Amino acid sequence: MIKVVAKSFSKPDKLDEILKLTAEMVEKTVKEEGCIKYEAFQDIRAPEVIIIIEEWESQEALNRHMASEHFRRIVPKLNELRQKASEVNVLKKLF
Amino acid sequence: MIKVVAKSFSKPDKLDEILKLTAEMVEKTVKEEGCIKYEAFQDIRAPEVIIIIEEWESQEALNRHMASEHFRRIVPKLNELRQKASEVNVLKKLF
Repeated sequence: MIKVVAKSFSKPDKLDEILKLTAEMVEKTVKEEGCIKYEAFQDIRAPEVIIIIEEWESQEALNRHMASEHFRRIVPKLNELRQKASEVNVLKKLF
Repeated sequence: MIKVVAKSFSKPDKLDEILKLTAEMVEKTVKEEGCIKYEAFQDIRAPEVIIIIEEWESQEALNRHMASEHFRRIVPKLNELRQKASEVNVLKKLF
């Protein structure tokens, strides 16, 4: 099992657009084979901070996700609306 | 429901100590009232990056956690073993 935490920082005036694209990303991604969980969260004190928490059955499933039509179409759009590059951590469970 | 993502950065030579204290923290915290989930992960490419993903029934439960004996005893010790302050995001679910 692979866990991914992806933290991004929206440009202040682009949050609505980010949320719309993120909603589409979640809707499409949860239907992917090998996707156990894909959930979007927002910091309650810093609304520009969006964190996606993902769980994948395998590295192959995660690779397929990153090659999917929706990933390749939506992620570049999201990147244009962000203050800076997202911080992505691919994780293994310790305890 | 409240989600917390806490990212920390271990001093390179302190990782073993950090992992021991983190294991104790997980063991104690999962027994707390109002704790739905409290899991520790490590970045597969950057082992000094430890991320705790938490789920709490309420803000009150999270407050109790931060006032607990184990939190008040272990967190200051962890902080001494970290390169810099942890990044803690308290989150609400979007999608």
